[in-house]
Amino acid sequence: VTLKPELASIRTDLGVLVGAEYVLAGAECRAYETDWTASRGLRGKPDAVTFPGSSEEVRQLVEWSSDRGVPLVPRGGGTGLAGGAVPVGGGVVVCLERLDQIIEFSPDQWRLTVGAGVTTHTVKRLARENGLLFPPDPGAAEQSQIGGNTATNAGGPHAFKYGGTGAWVTGLEAVVVPGEIIRVGGAQRKDVGGYDIKSLLVGSEGTLALITEVTLRLLPAPEAVVPLVMFFADTKAATESIRDIIASGIEPAALDYLDARTLELLKRSYPGDVPPDAMFALVSELDGSSDQVADSTSELRELVSPSAVAIDSPSATDLWRWRDGVGNVVAAVRGGKVSEDIVVPPDRLAEAVDEVVKIGRTADLEACSWGHAGDGNMHASFLVDPDDEAMMARAEQASQQLFDLAIALGGSITGEHGVGYLKAGQLERQWDPAALDLHERIKKDFDPAGVLNPGKKVARMSAGPKSGQVTRPSAAS
Amino acid sequence: VTLKPELASIRTDLGVLVGAEYVLAGAECRAYETDWTASRGLRGKPDAVTFPGSSEEVRQLVEWSSDRGVPLVPRGGGTGLAGGAVPVGGGVVVCLERLDQIIEFSPDQWRLTVGAGVTTHTVKRLARENGLLFPPDPGAAEQSQIGGNTATNAGGPHAFKYGGTGAWVTGLEAVVVPGEIIRVGGAQRKDVGGYDIKSLLVGSEGTLALITEVTLRLLPAPEAVVPLVMFFADTKAATESIRDIIASGIEPAALDYLDARTLELLKRSYPGDVPPDAMFALVSELDGSSDQVADSTSELRELVSPSAVAIDSPSATDLWRWRDGVGNVVAAVRGGKVSEDIVVPPDRLAEAVDEVVKIGRTADLEACSWGHAGDGNMHASFLVDPDDEAMMARAEQASQQLFDLAIALGGSITGEHGVGYLKAGQLERQWDPAALDLHERIKKDFDPAGVLNPGKKVARMSAGPKSGQVTRPSAAS
Repeated sequence: VTLKPELASIRTDLGVLVGAEYVLAGAECRAYETDWTASRGLRGKPDAVTFPGSSEEVRQLVEWSSDRGVPLVPRGGGTGLAGGAVPVGGGVVVCLERLDQIIEFSPDQWRLTVGAGVTTHTVKRLARENGLLFPPDPGAAEQSQIGGNTATNAGGPHAFKYGGTGAWVTGLEAVVVPGEIIRVGGAQRKDVGGYDIKSLLVGSEGTLALITEVTLRLLPAPEAVVPLVMFFADTKAATESIRDIIASGIEPAALDYLDARTLELLKRSYPGDVPPDAMFALVSELDGSSDQVADSTSELRELVSPSAVAIDSPSATDLWRWRDGVGNVVAAVRGGKVSEDIVVPPDRLAEAVDEVVKIGRTADLEACSWGHAGDGNMHASFLVDPDDEAMMARAEQASQQLFDLAIALGGSITGEHGVGYLKAGQLERQWDPAALDLHERIKKDFDPAGVLNPGKKVARMSAGPKSGQVTRPSAAS
Repeated sequence: VTLKPELASIRTDLGVLVGAEYVLAGAECRAYETDWTASRGLRGKPDAVTFPGSSEEVRQLVEWSSDRGVPLVPRGGGTGLAGGAVPVGGGVVVCLERLDQIIEFSPDQWRLTVGAGVTTHTVKRLARENGLLFPPDPGAAEQSQIGGNTATNAGGPHAFKYGGTGAWVTGLEAVVVPGEIIRVGGAQRKDVGGYDIKSLLVGSEGTLALITEVTLRLLPAPEAVVPLVMFFADTKAATESIRDIIASGIEPAALDYLDARTLELLKRSYPGDVPPDAMFALVSELDGSSDQVADSTSELRELVSPSAVAIDSPSATDLWRWRDGVGNVVAAVRGGKVSEDIVVPPDRLAEAVDEVVKIGRTADLEACSWGHAGDGNMHASFLVDPDDEAMMARAEQASQQLFDLAIALGGSITGEHGVGYLKAGQLERQWDPAALDLHERIKKDFDPAGVLNPGKKVARMSAGPKSGQVTRPSAAS
C-alpha cells in the first residue's frame, strides 16, 4: 500500500500517540466511513481511525490535532441518525470504545461515573442489577455509548417523564482544544458556580469538546411497570385521548404513538392482536409503586375506553423490543427511509401527523410517522428506495418541508437525533439571527481552528462544509 | 437637586425610553442599593433605577446601554444572597417587575409562559389552583420573581427530587447585547437544534442576557404530601440514616437537615415538640399517590426508628413556614450571619457539618449549618454582629475556608445562591484553567463591552471589579 505522504505521516503520528495497533488506515477504515445514516447515502473518507485508551491519550490527540490542523471526528457506537460521526471532510475518526471503565459506582448514592465508551446497555444493566434505574432509553442502547448519548442528548420513549440523557448527567470530563482536560460538575448534585458548560457540552455533538467521562445520577427502580397499548380508529380520537390523559393528571413514563401506516406495517410483529379497525396506536407505560400503578392503570383504561377500539397490556420486554424495531421495519418496506425527528408542541401533534402524510403525497412519496407523542417528538418518515436517485432527491426535498412544518407549529427541527451533518444549517429556520451568532461564537470559543467534528451542528446554511469527500444525498460510494 | 451632568443625561435618556414615571434617581434609589446581602455590608450606588414595561423596552435599554457604555444591573425580587442585583459599580438597575403578564397558560398541557417579573409565588399558586405543581421552592417565593429564579437557577428543599428552577424551564425570551430579542426553546418539550443557550442563560445571573419571558413545564400535583421530621442524638446517627434512606430506594421529595446549633435556635418556633436530647433534625417530605406515600412513610419510619430519638409529622404548611424562617432566626442571634451555600457530595455531609463548626471555632465564631442534605447543599453559617468590623472580617476570612472545604470534598462553591458579587473569583478554586478560560470567553461573546451586570459571576480573582463604589465586607453605608 502506498499512502499519500500526508496520510502516512498522520498514521505514524497516531501510532506514536496511541500505539500502532490502535490505528486503522486505508481499507480498514471502511466500517467507519458512515453511521446509521448510511442508507441516506452519507459517507466520508477518514484519513485514519484511532482508538485511544485513556483520557490522557484523547488529550494528546486533541493537542496533535490542534497543532497539525487535522480534524477529529469523535465516534461512540456509530448509531447516530444525523451523521454526527461521519467524517464528511476526512480527518481522524476517534473511537472512544476503549474508555470503557466503570470509574466509580455508588449504588447507595444513586451515582455512577463511567468512561465515555461504556455502552448505554451496560449503564442500564448496572443500575438495574442494583435496584436502580437509568431512565434514558434511546433506540440503540445495546450499541450506543454513554459518551455519544451525552454528546447528542439522546432521548427515547421514557424521556416523556424522565427527560433526555442530559437530565441525568451531573458531571463531565472532556478534552478541549488545544489539548486540556476539563471537569465540570461531578458527584455533587447541584452546582451553579460557573456558566453551565456541562449543559453546553451535552448535545454539542463533538463540536466543542471530546467527552471522556460521565457522572450520572440514577433513581431507585420503580416497583411496578405496566405497559398499556391503546388502539384507535382515527388520529383525532387518539390525539384527543392524549390530551385527556395529560389533563387527567396521570403521568405516564412513556407516551409514544404510531400513525395509521406505521401501525399497518408493524401489525404483524406486534406481541398480541391488533384490531382490524385500528388506525392509530398509543404505546404508554405507567411506573411507580404497585398500588399507584394499579390505580393509574384503571384510571387510564376508564378514561380511554370510550374512544379506543381496544386496550392491550403486553409484557414490557416484548412491547419495547417491538417498539424499538419500528425504524427498521419501516425502512425495510422499500429498502430505506428518510426520517426527521422534528418536534412540535404536543397539542399540535394531530395537525403534524396529517401534514406529514400530505407532504409525502405531494412529493409522490409514501409517508408515515411515529414517535414520542407526549413530547410532540415525531419520527416523520418517507419510505424510499435508496437506489432510486430521483426518489431520494424528492425525499430530501420533502424533508425541508418537514422542518418548515415544525417551525410553523412552534417546534424544533430536532428533538433527540441532533443536527449532525444532515440538518446542518437548519437552525437558521428556527432561531433569531442574534441567537445564531451566539451559537457560532460559542463554537469559535471552544474550537477556533475548527478541528472538532467540522461540518456538524452548523447553524447557518452558508457556513456548511465545502467538502468534496461527502456523497450526499443518495449516491453512496 | 443638582445632578452630575452625566447622571442627568442618563435620567433623561431613560425617561425617553421607558417613561419618566418609571425612572428613579438620587435618594429614590436607596432601596435598590442592595439586596438580601445588605447585612453583609454589600451596597452600591446606582446611577438610576428603571422599570421597563415590555420586552421591547428592555431591548431598547440594552441597546442604549451598549451605545453609551452604561452598565445594566437586572433585578427581580431583590432576594438574592450573593449580591447579584447589587449595583457594585454603579450603572442602571433594571427592575423587571412590570413584566408581570401571564402570557400563555395551558393547564391541560402542563405549560405556562410568564413575564420575568411574575413572582414565584404566583407561578406556584396558578399551578396549584389548576391541579398542577411547579416544584421549585426557593426560600423567598413571595417576593422572588421567576426571571430572577431562572437567572440564578434557584433551588430549595424540593430540588432533591425535582431539580432546580432550570429543570422546569423549556424556553426563554431574553435580550442580548447589542439590543436583540432572542428566543431559545419554547413550548416544545425537547430541542437539540442548537447549542444549549437556554441552559447557559439559566444561572448566568444577568451577566449574559436579560431574561424577559420564561416558559415552564409543570407537573400534575401529587395526590398526597406527608412531611416527616426525624430527630437524632448526634450527627453520625443522622447521616447514617440519610444514607440508609437513600439506599432503601425511598425517594423523598425533600431531605433537609438542621445541625445541633441550628436546631437549638429553631426549637422554640418548631410547630411541635423537639425532644430535649435532639442534636440533629432531618426534615423530609414524601409525595405521590396516597397509597404510595402511606407505604413510604411506614417504610421510612421503620427504617429510621432504631436510630432516631423521635419522628414527628406536623402539617406541611406549618413545617415549611418554620423551615423557611431558619435563615432569619439564625441571623437574629447576633444581628447577622455570613453564610455560604456550599455543596459536597451527599456522602461527605457528616464531615462537612463537623468541619464548619471547627472552622468557626478556629476563627472564634459561632458556626452552624442547615440545608439540603440529600443534595449535599449546606448553608454553612457564622453568626455575626454586623457592626463588629473585626468579627465581620474574621467571618469573611473563615468563608474562604468554607470554599476550600467544599472543593476538598469534591463539591462546589455554590449550589443555589450563585456567585453574584460575594463569590466573585471563587470558581478559580474549583475549575481547571481551561474551563475558566471558556467561562470568560462565553462572557466576552455575549457581552464584549461588559455592560451586563459587571463584577458578577466573575470566574477569576484577578478579573474582579475595581469599583470604588462598593463597600465590602462590613462597612455598610
